[in-house]
Amino acid sequence: MAARFLSERNLKFLLYDVFDVVALTQYGYYKEYDGKTFDMVLKAAMDLAEGLLWPIFQEMDKSPPEWVNDQIKVHPSVEKFLEKCGEGGWIGAGMPFEWGGQQLPQMITQVCTFIFAAANYSASVYPGLTSGAAHLILSFGKEELKKTYLPKMLSGKWQGTMALTEPEAGSSLSDITTEAEPTDHGYYKIRGQKIFISAGDHDAVENVVHLMLAKIQGAPAGVKGISLFVVPKKRLDEKGQWVPNDVVTSGIFHKLGYRGCPIAQLSIGDSDDCQGYLVGNPNQGLLHMFQMMNEARIEVGVGATAIASAAYYAALDYSKKRLQGRKLSTKDPTLPQVPIIEHPDVKRMLLFQRSITEGSLALLIQCGKYADLAGILTGEEKEKNELLLDLLTPVAKSYPAEMGLLSISAGLQCLGGSGYCDDYPLEQHYRDARIHPIHEGTTGIHGLDLLGRKVIMGHGKAYQLFLEEVQGTLQEAKKFEELESYVQKLTQSLDTLKKVTTHLVNVGKKGTPELFLADATLYLEFFGIFCVAWQWLAQASVVVKALRNDPDGAEGYFYKGKFFAFRYFFEYELPKLEGLAKRLMNSDGLTVDIKPDFFSD
Amino acid sequence: MAARFLSERNLKFLLYDVFDVVALTQYGYYKEYDGKTFDMVLKAAMDLAEGLLWPIFQEMDKSPPEWVNDQIKVHPSVEKFLEKCGEGGWIGAGMPFEWGGQQLPQMITQVCTFIFAAANYSASVYPGLTSGAAHLILSFGKEELKKTYLPKMLSGKWQGTMALTEPEAGSSLSDITTEAEPTDHGYYKIRGQKIFISAGDHDAVENVVHLMLAKIQGAPAGVKGISLFVVPKKRLDEKGQWVPNDVVTSGIFHKLGYRGCPIAQLSIGDSDDCQGYLVGNPNQGLLHMFQMMNEARIEVGVGATAIASAAYYAALDYSKKRLQGRKLSTKDPTLPQVPIIEHPDVKRMLLFQRSITEGSLALLIQCGKYADLAGILTGEEKEKNELLLDLLTPVAKSYPAEMGLLSISAGLQCLGGSGYCDDYPLEQHYRDARIHPIHEGTTGIHGLDLLGRKVIMGHGKAYQLFLEEVQGTLQEAKKFEELESYVQKLTQSLDTLKKVTTHLVNVGKKGTPELFLADATLYLEFFGIFCVAWQWLAQASVVVKALRNDPDGAEGYFYKGKFFAFRYFFEYELPKLEGLAKRLMNSDGLTVDIKPDFFSD
Repeated sequence: MAARFLSERNLKFLLYDVFDVVALTQYGYYKEYDGKTFDMVLKAAMDLAEGLLWPIFQEMDKSPPEWVNDQIKVHPSVEKFLEKCGEGGWIGAGMPFEWGGQQLPQMITQVCTFIFAAANYSASVYPGLTSGAAHLILSFGKEELKKTYLPKMLSGKWQGTMALTEPEAGSSLSDITTEAEPTDHGYYKIRGQKIFISAGDHDAVENVVHLMLAKIQGAPAGVKGISLFVVPKKRLDEKGQWVPNDVVTSGIFHKLGYRGCPIAQLSIGDSDDCQGYLVGNPNQGLLHMFQMMNEARIEVGVGATAIASAAYYAALDYSKKRLQGRKLSTKDPTLPQVPIIEHPDVKRMLLFQRSITEGSLALLIQCGKYADLAGILTGEEKEKNELLLDLLTPVAKSYPAEMGLLSISAGLQCLGGSGYCDDYPLEQHYRDARIHPIHEGTTGIHGLDLLGRKVIMGHGKAYQLFLEEVQGTLQEAKKFEELESYVQKLTQSLDTLKKVTTHLVNVGKKGTPELFLADATLYLEFFGIFCVAWQWLAQASVVVKALRNDPDGAEGYFYKGKFFAFRYFFEYELPKLEGLAKRLMNSDGLTVDIKPDFFSD
Repeated sequence: MAARFLSERNLKFLLYDVFDVVALTQYGYYKEYDGKTFDMVLKAAMDLAEGLLWPIFQEMDKSPPEWVNDQIKVHPSVEKFLEKCGEGGWIGAGMPFEWGGQQLPQMITQVCTFIFAAANYSASVYPGLTSGAAHLILSFGKEELKKTYLPKMLSGKWQGTMALTEPEAGSSLSDITTEAEPTDHGYYKIRGQKIFISAGDHDAVENVVHLMLAKIQGAPAGVKGISLFVVPKKRLDEKGQWVPNDVVTSGIFHKLGYRGCPIAQLSIGDSDDCQGYLVGNPNQGLLHMFQMMNEARIEVGVGATAIASAAYYAALDYSKKRLQGRKLSTKDPTLPQVPIIEHPDVKRMLLFQRSITEGSLALLIQCGKYADLAGILTGEEKEKNELLLDLLTPVAKSYPAEMGLLSISAGLQCLGGSGYCDDYPLEQHYRDARIHPIHEGTTGIHGLDLLGRKVIMGHGKAYQLFLEEVQGTLQEAKKFEELESYVQKLTQSLDTLKKVTTHLVNVGKKGTPELFLADATLYLEFFGIFCVAWQWLAQASVVVKALRNDPDGAEGYFYKGKFFAFRYFFEYELPKLEGLAKRLMNSDGLTVDIKPDFFSD
C-alpha cells in the first residue's frame, strides 16, 4: 500500500455529491460518460500516481535536472511518465474526440491533475503544460499547425510550454522585447530572450513547442502590440526533416523546490534562424494567451492544494503514530505516552490543514464546473458561467497558493524536529509549494486583477452574479436547522464583503488608482476566505443530509470529520475577516504616501 | 562594501534612545563601560560579521557538514570563527571578569548575537551554545568543573551543547531514559541516546562538552527525576590525558536549512565507559537547565529576527534596483519602467517586514533589559524584572519565530521568480528560519507555557506587572499629541487582552485543562501582536520627539521611515487581534471534542 497523499473518498464526495458532475452527461458533449466511467478515469489516475509518480517524488528532488551541453537532462522517469500520459490520453483529456482527446469535463480533468500533483507536483507539470499549449493551438491555430503539432503533443512525445517572461518583463508583460520579423515564407523570424520557462527544454521528449509572446516589428507599444507564436525547438525543413530551429537553452535556474521540473533560460534566434508561426491574430497575442494563462492559474491552485493535501496526510500519519506526552488532564508520568493526535493543539493544526485543503479543492472544482457549463450552455447562461469563472480565477489561484504554504507549514510543525529533516516528505512539500504565490502571476498581481478589473468589469456584473451564487448556497443551507448559526455567520460576512467592496469601489471613483488598489492584496485575501467559507457551507448541506442517515464505520467518521473541518473553518478562519475588513475600510494611503527614501536605513 | 543585512542605525536607536543601555553603567557591575566602549563592541561585532561570517553564508549552506567515520566535519571557516570568538571574548561576553568574561549587559550581547546571526545564522549558533553551556556550569557547577571546562570553552577551543532530546522524548522531557549510574569515583556512568543535538559533534574544536539531562538510577518518574550532567566527548584520565569518553556520534540529520551547523545523534555509554559529572543538585536538573533553555529561547527569537532582518535588506536592495511596471496612475507603456519600490504593494510588503523585524528586536532587547536589571537589582525590584522576563520569554521566542517566517516569505515575494532561485539569499533565509518555531520548544509548547503557567503563576503576578509596564508606555506616549489615536488603539487592545485573559482563566477554573488550553497557541499569537504593538508605541514616543527637531538627510529618512513602520504595525497588524479575540472568547471545545478517528479519511 502506497503512502497516502489524498482522500479518494473526498474527491468522490465533491465530484458526485456536491458538484454532481454526472449531471453534465445529460448534455450531448459528455454523453459518452457516466458515473462508472468517471470512476474508471479516477482509478486510472490513482494507479499512475501510486505506481509511478509517488515512488520518485523524493528522488526527482534529490537529482534535479542538469544543464549539459546546451541541453537539459531530467530524471529518466519523466520520459516514461510522458509516454504513459500519451497512451492513457491524459494530455488530451479535456480536448475533443476529433483531435484525439478524451472530451472529459474540466471537473474530472482537474481532479486527475490534483491526483498527479499530490503524488509528485514537479512531474505533473510536464503534461499539464503540454495540455494547455495544445489547447491554445486548437483554439487559435490554423489547421496546418493543428495537424502538425497536436498529435505529437497529445502523444507525450513533444513538450508544450508557455514562453512569456523575459529578463526585463516578468509581471509587466507589456515590456517584452522578443521580436518577430515578418518574412515572405509564411513564418516570422524570432529573436529574443526568455527566462523562467517551465519544462522549457529537456531530454525526455523529441521536441519542445513554445507558445511564445513576441512583438511583430512596428507593432504598437505595450500589450496592444503583443502577438502569439508557435516557436518549436526543432522545425520541419523543406525536405521534411526535423532540424534545429535556433532556440538555444542558455541556462537553468537552481530553485528552492519544485526541482523535478527544469526552469530554463532560452536564447532565441541568436543565429538569425528561428522560425515562429503566428497563432491567432497579430497584436492579439495576449488576449489569446489568456486562455492558457487562466487555465494555468487554476492549475496552480490545484497544484498548491494537492501539495497541501500530501502534506496533510503525511502529518496525519505521523500524528497517529508518534507517541509523545500525556493528556493535559492526566499528567501522571508513569502512564504511557499518547499519540500526539490526542492533543488539542495537534488536532487544531490538522483541522486547519484539512479545512484549507478541502475548502480550496471545493472552490477549484466549482471553477471547473463554471468552465464546463460555459462550454456547454449558450447565451446568457454561458456568459454567466464565463463571468463567474473570470471573477474567481485570481481567488482560486491565490488562496490555495498562499494558504497552502501555511497549511504545509502546520503539517511540518506537527512533526517537530522530524518535519525539518528529509526523512519525511514535509520539508520538500514546504519548498515545492513556495513557487505557487509567484508563478502564473504573483499574489499582488492577482489582487490588482480581482479588485482593479474583475470586480468592477461590466458595472460589477460578475460580482453581482457571484453574490447571487452565495445567496443560493445560503438558501439551500437554511433547510437544515443544524446549519442555522453558520448561515448567520456567512450572511454577516456577506454584508461585510458588500460593505468593503462598496467602500473600495467608491475610493476608486474618487481617488487615485494607487489609493484604490493599495490594499488589493488584502482584498484578495478577504475574498478568498469568504469564498472558501461559502464552499464549506455548500459542503455542509450535503454533510448534514448524510449524517441524518446516521452512517457508521468509515462513512460515519468521514462525515463527522467533514463537519468538524467545516466548523473549524467558520470558527477559526472566518473571524479573520474582522481584522481585514477594519484595515480595508481604512484607505489612509499609508503605503502610497511612504517615499522610497524612507526605507533608506 | 559588504551586502546589508541589518541597520546599525536602528541598533543604536534601540540600545541608546529607547532602552538607554548606558544607564546600566551607573551600577557597579557595569562601571567599566560607557557609550563609547559599547560602540566599540558593536563595531567589532560588525567587523567580524562582515569580514568573516557573511562571505561564507551561502557556502556553508552549499557544503553542509558530513558524517565521516563517526566524526562530523564542518566548514573549515567554523574553526577560524570560533578562534576569533575566543580571542575577541565573544563566548564569555556576558560572563564575569573573574572567569575571563567581558561582563557586558545582555542588551549588548544580544545585539552582538543579532549581528552575527543576521550575517550567518548557522555560524552564530556554535559560540552561542558554548556560551549558554558555560554559563550553566558557572551557575551550578562545582569549582573543579568550572576550572576544568570554562577556560577552554570561553577560548572557543571546546564546544558546548545542550543535550536534552531523545528519540522518544522531544516535547515531553519527562520521558527521557538516559541513565546515570552512581559510582564511588565521584562520577556517574551515563548510558543513553540523544538526538537533534545542535553542534553535537564537529571537527572545528578539540572537545565537545554536553550539558546533558539524564536520570539517576532509582530517581522518581517524570521531571522530578531529571538530573544535569557535564558529559564531555573527551575526558581527563588518571594520567592527565584527554581520552575518548564513549560518546559516539551515530548519525547526522539532513535538514531543510540551517545547514551550516550539524545536528547530531549521539550514542552514550555503549561500551559502558562514559563518565558524567553532576551539575547542581540531583533531581533538579531540569530546573537548572531552564537557565540555559530560557537563554536559548531568547536567542532563538534573536536568530529569527536576525534572519528576517537579512531577508528584509536583501528584498529592499532588490526592490530599489529592479525596474518593473509603471505607476498605476500613469500606465503609458512608452514611459520607462519604475523601480518596484514605487508600487504600493511592494512598499506594503517592505513595511510589513520592517515592522515585524524592528518590533521583534525591540521586544527582545526589552527582555534583555529585564534580565540585566534582574541581575543588578535586589528584593522586589529584582523579582519584578525576573517575573517580567519569565512571562515574556515564550512570547519573545515565538513571535519572531512565527512572524519571522512570514516576513521572510514576503521578502522572497518581493523578488518574484528570482526569490525562488539561489542567485539571491532569500531562498536560504526561508529555509534557515523554518527551524525557529520548532527548536527550544515548539510554538505549541510555548502557548501552553504562557497561558498554562506564566499568566497564572503567583495569582497572575507577572501578568499584572506586565499590564503596569504597558500603562507606563501609554503614559509616556500620551505626552505627544501625534500619538493620540495610537494611544487609543493600544488602550482598546489592552482592554481586549484583559477581557480575553479573564475569560480564559475562568474557563481554566471551571473546565478541564484541555478546554482551558485548547487555543493556547492562538493566545500566544494574540499576546505577541499586543507586545510588539506595545514596543512600537514605546519607540514612537522617541521618534516623535526626534521628528520635532526636523532632522534632515539620512536622519530624517530614518525617523520618518520608522514612524511609517510604527503606523503600519498599528494599521495592518494590530487589527488581527479582532479575529483572534473573537475566537479566543468562544471556547467551544471544538479541537477537544473531535475524535482522532474522525481524521481517518
